[in-house]
Amino acid sequence: MSVIDEVLAANETYSHTHELRRLTPRPERKLAILTCMDTRLSIRTLGLKTGDAHIIRNAGGIVTDDSLRSLLVSHYLLGTEEFMVINHTDCGLLKTTDEELRTRIQNDAGTAAIAPAHFYAFTNLEQNVREQLQKLHTHPWIPKAIAVRGFIYDVSTGLLREVAHA
Amino acid sequence: MSVIDEVLAANETYSHTHELRRLTPRPERKLAILTCMDTRLSIRTLGLKTGDAHIIRNAGGIVTDDSLRSLLVSHYLLGTEEFMVINHTDCGLLKTTDEELRTRIQNDAGTAAIAPAHFYAFTNLEQNVREQLQKLHTHPWIPKAIAVRGFIYDVSTGLLREVAHA
Repeated sequence: MSVIDEVLAANETYSHTHELRRLTPRPERKLAILTCMDTRLSIRTLGLKTGDAHIIRNAGGIVTDDSLRSLLVSHYLLGTEEFMVINHTDCGLLKTTDEELRTRIQNDAGTAAIAPAHFYAFTNLEQNVREQLQKLHTHPWIPKAIAVRGFIYDVSTGLLREVAHA
Repeated sequence: MSVIDEVLAANETYSHTHELRRLTPRPERKLAILTCMDTRLSIRTLGLKTGDAHIIRNAGGIVTDDSLRSLLVSHYLLGTEEFMVINHTDCGLLKTTDEELRTRIQNDAGTAAIAPAHFYAFTNLEQNVREQLQKLHTHPWIPKAIAVRGFIYDVSTGLLREVAHA
């Protein structure tokens, strides 16, 4: 039995207790969070529950064309007014480089590929958060009225620390 | 007090009970999930817990250059072996078009912008899932040995339904 089959069985069990309360696509707390796909992150650490916020996740918690797209949809279509960018300690992208990763994949896969163009590996966690904030602060479609704030989540202590604006 | 400030206070409270068990960046169940940023989705509906899986989320649950990057990092760097793509009923991207959204944002922001190039609005949910699977199945860096399966999550019933391969 594959893990996905186990997930399907667990989902069937879950559905018997699925709450019918009318959660809507509009985040109740008007908050969008961009963070990493890392296994150790959870909205529970932020005191949030299902329905409160949009959660956008990619490798690293990076502002890319895609996560920018998601934040724009979140604000313009679904009414969020505050954005958090959360990177975290012990991130996998701190332990490699774009070149190393590309070489490893090309060797394993036995072929080159055009996309993705970047892996966004990084070496300085604070600096990385600042760069993501900078990308948002300078984009013409992110309104100045939106609070855009950046954080580092420490996976050992469970604490967020704010990274000052550039 | 902004919502983000409330989140910081909640996080400080959370940190007092933060478990010190050694979760690692490698997903325990070797599973990666690509799904939507929607407020109503939660790993609880899948019987999963923190530590089990990589969770990649964007507007719609779309295979983009960025989510592809994340899946590649997940497999090659962190050892996942099964991928789930989950779209869901009542998705915001079913209720707009790329052109409508771009026009709305340009009007609200008062200026044009180059990025993002696409919003990935769609009209047919099943077809959209199939297209995402197709992008993964045809990418030279997604190994054939990886199980790549697509699903629709029904937000009213809480049930996953598998979408057959193309």
